[in-house]
Amino acid sequence: MVRPLIDAFNSIFYPGTLAVIGASADLTKFGNIILSAIQEIGYEGKIYPVNPEGGEINGLKAFKSLPEIPGPVDFAIITVPASALFKALEECRDKEVKGVEILTSGFKETGTPEGRKMEAEIARFAQRGMRILGPNCFGIYCPESGLTILPGQNFSRETGPVGFLSQSGGLCADLGQIAKGLGIRFSKMVSYGNGCDVAACDLLEYFFADEKTRIIAGYIEGVDDGPRFLRLLRENRGKKPVILWKAGLTATGGRAVQSHTGSMGGSQAVWEGGFQQAGVIQVYSSEELIDAIYAFLFLPATAGSRLAVMGGGGAISVAASDSLERLGLSVPSFSPTVLRKLKASFPVVGNSLSNPVDLGNPMIPPSMLRKVMEAAGEDGGIDTLIVIQILFYILYQVRHRLARHDRPLSQFSFQPELLKACQEVKARYGKSIILVMPDITTDGQMIDLEIEWRRERDAYQTAGFPVFRSLDRAARALAHFVRYQAMVS
Amino acid sequence: MVRPLIDAFNSIFYPGTLAVIGASADLTKFGNIILSAIQEIGYEGKIYPVNPEGGEINGLKAFKSLPEIPGPVDFAIITVPASALFKALEECRDKEVKGVEILTSGFKETGTPEGRKMEAEIARFAQRGMRILGPNCFGIYCPESGLTILPGQNFSRETGPVGFLSQSGGLCADLGQIAKGLGIRFSKMVSYGNGCDVAACDLLEYFFADEKTRIIAGYIEGVDDGPRFLRLLRENRGKKPVILWKAGLTATGGRAVQSHTGSMGGSQAVWEGGFQQAGVIQVYSSEELIDAIYAFLFLPATAGSRLAVMGGGGAISVAASDSLERLGLSVPSFSPTVLRKLKASFPVVGNSLSNPVDLGNPMIPPSMLRKVMEAAGEDGGIDTLIVIQILFYILYQVRHRLARHDRPLSQFSFQPELLKACQEVKARYGKSIILVMPDITTDGQMIDLEIEWRRERDAYQTAGFPVFRSLDRAARALAHFVRYQAMVS
Repeated sequence: MVRPLIDAFNSIFYPGTLAVIGASADLTKFGNIILSAIQEIGYEGKIYPVNPEGGEINGLKAFKSLPEIPGPVDFAIITVPASALFKALEECRDKEVKGVEILTSGFKETGTPEGRKMEAEIARFAQRGMRILGPNCFGIYCPESGLTILPGQNFSRETGPVGFLSQSGGLCADLGQIAKGLGIRFSKMVSYGNGCDVAACDLLEYFFADEKTRIIAGYIEGVDDGPRFLRLLRENRGKKPVILWKAGLTATGGRAVQSHTGSMGGSQAVWEGGFQQAGVIQVYSSEELIDAIYAFLFLPATAGSRLAVMGGGGAISVAASDSLERLGLSVPSFSPTVLRKLKASFPVVGNSLSNPVDLGNPMIPPSMLRKVMEAAGEDGGIDTLIVIQILFYILYQVRHRLARHDRPLSQFSFQPELLKACQEVKARYGKSIILVMPDITTDGQMIDLEIEWRRERDAYQTAGFPVFRSLDRAARALAHFVRYQAMVS
Repeated sequence: MVRPLIDAFNSIFYPGTLAVIGASADLTKFGNIILSAIQEIGYEGKIYPVNPEGGEINGLKAFKSLPEIPGPVDFAIITVPASALFKALEECRDKEVKGVEILTSGFKETGTPEGRKMEAEIARFAQRGMRILGPNCFGIYCPESGLTILPGQNFSRETGPVGFLSQSGGLCADLGQIAKGLGIRFSKMVSYGNGCDVAACDLLEYFFADEKTRIIAGYIEGVDDGPRFLRLLRENRGKKPVILWKAGLTATGGRAVQSHTGSMGGSQAVWEGGFQQAGVIQVYSSEELIDAIYAFLFLPATAGSRLAVMGGGGAISVAASDSLERLGLSVPSFSPTVLRKLKASFPVVGNSLSNPVDLGNPMIPPSMLRKVMEAAGEDGGIDTLIVIQILFYILYQVRHRLARHDRPLSQFSFQPELLKACQEVKARYGKSIILVMPDITTDGQMIDLEIEWRRERDAYQTAGFPVFRSLDRAARALAHFVRYQAMVS
């Protein structure tokens, strides 16, 4: 039952040949931006630009029409104006193209009777084997096949476990970019816009079945078949985690949704109730969405709600405590044995050794943090360690010495030693470790510290440790993860 | 009645001579970090390092004890261990030092009877004219006099209207750093730690009276005299805006507060009720605190709650609508005249011209944004314009052309033209304009885009326009500002 859908989608996600109908040499046109993106990211299949003028576009021979292309075309990207759309669709149908994505807009989302009528006509083409994505979308990103969205020339070519579906192309474009630095990698990302044919339900079914997709996330404005949508989600309950941002839940948001993709926003209570029943992780902003994906990607199933928080600079610990408790996480007192050990290792003065542990000074040598990590590792009442390091103070001190040494910032970094401590504590006690490195170098002059921040972040991430820019964000993401784990276990 | 307090504080904030008791040549000691910080930021008064060994520290002659210093000492920074503290305080008293700050910790915050007893003894020195800051604090930052906290060597020397008080030194250190890039400038910033003498009430009184302070913000863990604190705030209601983060409102947070500064957290309901009565802007995280200060600094009193939101990429507008409505702001429909004008300027296809305005493409030329800004400016039902620009897409396109041109990124920027549009629309229609430039370049390789981001942000800020990194943050900060304005008007 699902098999034909999987096969149909796979021929879209992994096309051997594709045509860009409406390809253009004009750098500002979608017809050039999408063609360039696919060339730049390194799609390995055959690309056929189609333009009535023929000639050459981006170094490729352009065909005057689809029928002129020799041999089969698996997939077509359509960027022609609305007026030329139906002719293009007819040609696709005649050439037995397996799937098309329509970037063109001006249909249901205009809110006009003509727009709605045209969209219904487009949908009628989605029969006899040809699936349609869009209209009014940015397309498909599939790092494995080298297909990408507009503008996604710069996205990673690494494949990963995240399947992403979105009615907003802009969010896809942003997410692909942000994800790159965060080590979030995708199996497929699909911007489906108005969703006249392929939409949330089919995409969910695909991702549930797709072996390459382990975590599903999405941005939804509305769905046509609400009962089917919620039924699919319920059937998946406890299988693959689904993180959804349902926008347009307020009156103003609902109005905006309608003129964005022509969807109906729907009632907040219905959506929230349905999501909860299905075990969906519901988020309310793009930052929350990204942080939740990140947490599900990096945290092992054992990451639990009983936390040890450690760092230097007391406001951080106090704030942590407030944030964590509000989110339903706990910062339990250490066991007497563990507390005794800590007291033997650190002077009481200047340090607060109960959990959260505040080592007073923001420049904490990794050897000191390691002692606290080991103590927390040993404590049977603790599941997860949150290690806070304000990189700035260390680096700023270092830069002073650098003036004399002429060596790169990274050579003075605490990171290699702290990473080693993280790895050893994790291996020895089997507990999850989350790093928090607040970013406080907003100044244009201090960009070298931001560069070093990213280098260190990458080092921790590569070793499997998530790094958040603030405690509040780490706490919010962890809370989603912990609630989900509690539900499925 | 308040005059003596003002005079006493001014002799602390603007000392002509200061001693660092416990000054050290060891780079890792507070006694060196604070001395270096004051030297590096460029304090113009006379600095006397005091160390029993004498000699020279950081190029300055060190005195073996305070009495050896010739002439008066206005202010003393004490970093000696707890055991040597009382001798230092006695010497300060004998030399008629007007104020001291005690960086040393190990008193009330240890939670021990001895700690509490010593703290009470310290407080007894705060008589006969000598005011005491701390213990367990990071000190004072006063850009006008060149005094700074530990570690605040790098803070701005520009004076500004923000008075900041904090029980957390770490937060002061972070805020001074973050503020630099955001154009937030301070009259004074005071880390008062345990607050055995100078504490929240006196500091509020000072800031209320201080002509150089126009906006007051603070991080509070607890206050000794709750009724006086709330009375002072109530008396100020509607005068100077006060933004406060009261930490430790949860049970876990309250426990952390106690071991951080030895304060009592207090009940959430009491604090929130008291703040509301006094018209205090209450915030719950450092990010929210900073964003609120930023909004109060940059927004004119006319910035109201009826918003026009414009940008490219629809998810942004939908998300904006949801966030704004949840915060009590409105995104009203444009008047028919204005909507007609917009429809005459833009094709309906690909654009959503009702408010929020979505121009479809994230690369919107400033000339197009200007048309929407002018229309919104003209609309009598709109107070504030939120202009969203995703810098990344513009810069990324530009970088492609750069490979051929070898010119800096900034030369291709939309910023000069968009800034001009902001200035002209503001001048012509008298409406507030807020910019949102999402940051999506988290990748280590794309640091040049982050550099350009900061350059553009600085250009808008210098011209008086606030720039937020996300819509949600802009909305939250604006909502605080609008609620405050509604209360005082």
